[in-house]
Amino acid sequence: MTKQTLMTPGPVPLPPEVLDVLALPMEHHRTPEFEALFGRVLENLKKVFETSERVFVQTSTGSGGMESALVNCLSPGDTVIAIVSGKFGERWADMAEVFGAKVIRHEVPWGKVVQVADIEKLLKANPEAVAVITQACETSTAVLHPIRELAQVTKSHKAVLMVDAITALGALQMPMDGYGIDVLIGGSQKAFMLPTGLSFISFSKKAWALTETSKCPKFYFDIREERKANEKGESLFSTAVTHIRALDRVLSIFLTKGMHKVHERIQALSKATILAASEMGLKILSEVPSPSVTAILMPDGIDSAKVRSEMEKQSNVIVMGGQDQLKGKIIRIGHMGAISDEDMAVTFKAFAKALNSLKPETVSDAQLQKALSVIESTLKSTPAVLSDGPTSSQAHL
Amino acid sequence: MTKQTLMTPGPVPLPPEVLDVLALPMEHHRTPEFEALFGRVLENLKKVFETSERVFVQTSTGSGGMESALVNCLSPGDTVIAIVSGKFGERWADMAEVFGAKVIRHEVPWGKVVQVADIEKLLKANPEAVAVITQACETSTAVLHPIRELAQVTKSHKAVLMVDAITALGALQMPMDGYGIDVLIGGSQKAFMLPTGLSFISFSKKAWALTETSKCPKFYFDIREERKANEKGESLFSTAVTHIRALDRVLSIFLTKGMHKVHERIQALSKATILAASEMGLKILSEVPSPSVTAILMPDGIDSAKVRSEMEKQSNVIVMGGQDQLKGKIIRIGHMGAISDEDMAVTFKAFAKALNSLKPETVSDAQLQKALSVIESTLKSTPAVLSDGPTSSQAHL
Repeated sequence: MTKQTLMTPGPVPLPPEVLDVLALPMEHHRTPEFEALFGRVLENLKKVFETSERVFVQTSTGSGGMESALVNCLSPGDTVIAIVSGKFGERWADMAEVFGAKVIRHEVPWGKVVQVADIEKLLKANPEAVAVITQACETSTAVLHPIRELAQVTKSHKAVLMVDAITALGALQMPMDGYGIDVLIGGSQKAFMLPTGLSFISFSKKAWALTETSKCPKFYFDIREERKANEKGESLFSTAVTHIRALDRVLSIFLTKGMHKVHERIQALSKATILAASEMGLKILSEVPSPSVTAILMPDGIDSAKVRSEMEKQSNVIVMGGQDQLKGKIIRIGHMGAISDEDMAVTFKAFAKALNSLKPETVSDAQLQKALSVIESTLKSTPAVLSDGPTSSQAHL
Repeated sequence: MTKQTLMTPGPVPLPPEVLDVLALPMEHHRTPEFEALFGRVLENLKKVFETSERVFVQTSTGSGGMESALVNCLSPGDTVIAIVSGKFGERWADMAEVFGAKVIRHEVPWGKVVQVADIEKLLKANPEAVAVITQACETSTAVLHPIRELAQVTKSHKAVLMVDAITALGALQMPMDGYGIDVLIGGSQKAFMLPTGLSFISFSKKAWALTETSKCPKFYFDIREERKANEKGESLFSTAVTHIRALDRVLSIFLTKGMHKVHERIQALSKATILAASEMGLKILSEVPSPSVTAILMPDGIDSAKVRSEMEKQSNVIVMGGQDQLKGKIIRIGHMGAISDEDMAVTFKAFAKALNSLKPETVSDAQLQKALSVIESTLKSTPAVLSDGPTSSQAHL
């Protein structure tokens, strides 16, 4: 079988440096070496979060991080304003209801950004609201919401701002302290270039105050207990040694090269994707596209589920389709992880081939050549951020 | 630095076959190949659980599995009888209280097994009890509780029997259906020879009935939603591809070689440890020792925390000490994972050296030689269960 070209917004292709660390022999977490590593990871995560608060590592998927945010801050009966602009917004609103919150759903048309003034109105009308919850990037629509502006609004209200930045943190600047975000959540299988299995979370002082009175029952995600354990250099439950060692490697690469370099590469992949799609006559769904993932609208009469399937069958290139109301309408291409320039070219060749096999002459040879050319020119000045090991494409060999 | 010899009851040394799989490139979970693999894993887990019920894989440590058992079956106010015979029993009882249960703690002296008649009396006195919760092996005391007999008692009562078999499942026979266990929990970093990060759980029909009426709030661990996802060949949240591929490899090795071979090897390591300790004049803590881990009592005047520390410093051999009331009193040696005969010899040499450095002439040369000899003779007929790849010790190179 040919190499799989993984272009989804999580899981993402892992660099060889990470794969090497995943294959290291197991070691115990109660040794001076590992304790030093764990301490370094927690400190380095603070640099990615751009916060002076502690950052916590939980053994869970990103959804576990979203649950942790809610159960640590809320009490049953609390009012929560949920920005619902796609699948993940729906999930978080559902979750808040399960834990007893009175949820005010602010529905945003899929593909659009939230209007900050609408949230300000809701906060004024519901001054008792304890939290505003939102995605930074709503993965299902590839939209980037105005987190900085939302935080400016929540600052002067009782409510904390909780941000699911699972498809944003590490991919673009999301300075927790600088913006005034109260709860910030990330996940390992996105910009952190790791396997699924860790969520990251941090709480502002305003959010810590809520944890003192929160009445939601919690044990596995109890952040105050996790903090006590971290203060002793331990994790609350079994330590995910393999993941944490790989995270240490990734953070070391990121911080040595500079987070701005990581962001620039992802931004360049996003730009190249949008320009290449445009050369092929295709439009973008998102009102404000997130650098981490791009949602490309299909030409009339083409079902994106079939495009996705043909790309996989014909070329072993994996992209995502649309979900629910966007089913059949979009192809989503991720920009996080160890994506080489060649991966991008392979993806667009496969994309054009799939489109043409479903509807002949959708993309002309000339259009494809222009798309490939714009990819090459856009990416050449911003190489992938990896250490000096083999190139990312070798990770697949 | 010399190779670390990891002899703890989790994390455990991983075989080279597992390390190889952990280093494979990331792939997407929505492909026919991965969906087939995931389906196979779920089927093969049923064979290890010895159940006809579904087994679920959750992205969490074992404690997440313990929480899942409680929140899926209980409602606030429910009576729970908790067998508390060590650290993990305490944790589970605390957890049940957090989720609103009225917990009747049945304290068993650390190192002793629970008396089944005591539980029968408690069930008769508290017929409203919804669950009896117990460890199979209480890792902190290395005791194996009589699960089969407990299940015979709970069968004729309202209560379900929930078994934390994290340090037992895969290491010894624990037939869920055959014994009549209602909720059975395992963890990846024990006999399954994987990194920390997955918990496994299954529910009997009696337990499924409880899930229909359970009022504990749950989302991340909602097993009825997980079941719906599994029925479509998916996991409820992001799929832990790397761990699940490695689990597939381990289950394939286990089931090809036969689970009885896995159990026999672990039993042999346990027997060798007990006999070797005896040759060195040392006694065992546990009234009924679990095959998965052995707790060795220290000679008078020797602090086990110092023994543990000296073994690490002098020989890079990692064992566990005792916790809380057993602090300083025991050394715990694990028998799960890719442990070679040589690892056992290295461990006992390091053990004798550490004891003698703390209290000269605790173990004579003759005693150590007898210990090494009994290890060799006990293990030689039951080799480690791995595929035909390199020996386990090469995994550390």
